[in-house]
Amino acid sequence: MLNALLPHSGNAFRIGISGVPGVGKSTFIEALGLLLIERGERVAVLAVDPSSAVGGGSILGDKTRMERLSMDPRAFIRPSPSSGTLGGVADKTREAIRLCEAAGFTVVLVETVGVGQSEAAVAGMTDLFVLLQLPNAGDDLQAIKRGVTELADLIVVNKADLDADAATGARSQFVSALKIMGHRDQAWRPEVLQVSALDGTGMEEFWQAACRFREVQTSSGGFEQRRRAQDQSWMWERIEAGLRERFRRHPDVRAALTSLSDEVREGRVAASVAARRLLDLFN
Amino acid sequence: MLNALLPHSGNAFRIGISGVPGVGKSTFIEALGLLLIERGERVAVLAVDPSSAVGGGSILGDKTRMERLSMDPRAFIRPSPSSGTLGGVADKTREAIRLCEAAGFTVVLVETVGVGQSEAAVAGMTDLFVLLQLPNAGDDLQAIKRGVTELADLIVVNKADLDADAATGARSQFVSALKIMGHRDQAWRPEVLQVSALDGTGMEEFWQAACRFREVQTSSGGFEQRRRAQDQSWMWERIEAGLRERFRRHPDVRAALTSLSDEVREGRVAASVAARRLLDLFN
Repeated sequence: MLNALLPHSGNAFRIGISGVPGVGKSTFIEALGLLLIERGERVAVLAVDPSSAVGGGSILGDKTRMERLSMDPRAFIRPSPSSGTLGGVADKTREAIRLCEAAGFTVVLVETVGVGQSEAAVAGMTDLFVLLQLPNAGDDLQAIKRGVTELADLIVVNKADLDADAATGARSQFVSALKIMGHRDQAWRPEVLQVSALDGTGMEEFWQAACRFREVQTSSGGFEQRRRAQDQSWMWERIEAGLRERFRRHPDVRAALTSLSDEVREGRVAASVAARRLLDLFN
Repeated sequence: MLNALLPHSGNAFRIGISGVPGVGKSTFIEALGLLLIERGERVAVLAVDPSSAVGGGSILGDKTRMERLSMDPRAFIRPSPSSGTLGGVADKTREAIRLCEAAGFTVVLVETVGVGQSEAAVAGMTDLFVLLQLPNAGDDLQAIKRGVTELADLIVVNKADLDADAATGARSQFVSALKIMGHRDQAWRPEVLQVSALDGTGMEEFWQAACRFREVQTSSGGFEQRRRAQDQSWMWERIEAGLRERFRRHPDVRAALTSLSDEVREGRVAASVAARRLLDLFN
């Protein structure tokens, strides 16, 4: 079915939205969604949160958090698939993006929790990756850790209404951090914006920046290039996941894996020797 | 043979040394090696440079670059294996570390070129990862890109004699960058040192910092923990490389891979569908 729909997919602007809990992702997505609907876009909201299987849905689980958007017939909101592993969740979300596109949605927002691996997965399936930040991040600047900032095409300091000075300070900190970190696409220089999703300030400017990004990336070829690279990685990720699964399920491998793994840990067998023995069992 | 030697290995201090070309890695390693030999250590120098297969040995290929150290019978210098792929080079180097340890070397220095993947590989096989920097890195600070700084347990600003002011400036830039970036081990706060490997200034202080690192990590358990995690990753890396290789060599997979890969690129087949088809062929 996915293959049959494929020719009808690919037409949406795929936007990943990330940030630590409390940064105001839901409020931001609701404000953005409503603004886009007003402009005639059809908006789908998906989520990637592998922890939701355990915690019972920490993001988008509660639709009331996007009360107005979830009641609008022009919007579609789907919580994270709760398949448990990040690979599985990411896989289903990538497929859901194509389905939404085939169904005519023009903007797909993919929300993710602020942990490195999910963020990388969402950055790997979207055209534009947005990182939301709090104005009082202070010296800690969690997001700069683990290379997340490097994935960001736009950084948005949310809740700028709470403390305008702090927001401006945070903004300039991110601007200098971005200068140091560099960006994965040559043609685009990431921007740092201030918004207040709660009262809507700056949302218009955010959307302008997003459209500017799309124009720059489209004319440089980076837009198409990123999508192609993402599709290739997706194929190889699936292949490797499939190979690993078969390997772990193989009866002879299963019988030997635990003990060999322990022997490696205890320094009694070299890791490369253990790997070779296990590979010999896999036939 | 590797397994037979394994009980006799593990006793060396494994130090990874990285930095861009021109930063003075050879001079630094020679100065450090000579200092350590004077103190009764036995020093092995290995290298990880996957490009050496192509370029004819860009690091350690020319032993004359470490003239005094290479002539000393208490030191052993081996250029990078030229197997071509990073995985293969890393694998051979990990085995070489064990062989050097079984042969009684007490310090193993592993040199690498300043590119992200090789650096991550070397950080993944050593106890202490050192990043050499130039004093005039300026605003560019290449190393902070791509998360390399995050791997560094010690940052050394070399050639501090050339421009003392610049070196002090670079040092404070790295100190603030490290505050932002965080470190993979909780117990250790990375230090930034200034040396001049050419005239030996600061080499003594470098070794003291390295020993301090080893003490802190040993008493926190981080030293042993890092080695165990490295061994486990090594095993799984080897397994995955083995699986990938078998997959790519499989006649039915080979026959279909190019065309399916093209179809994914052109958007005619979904990546997940292509992956499933290829996995079905692999039997």
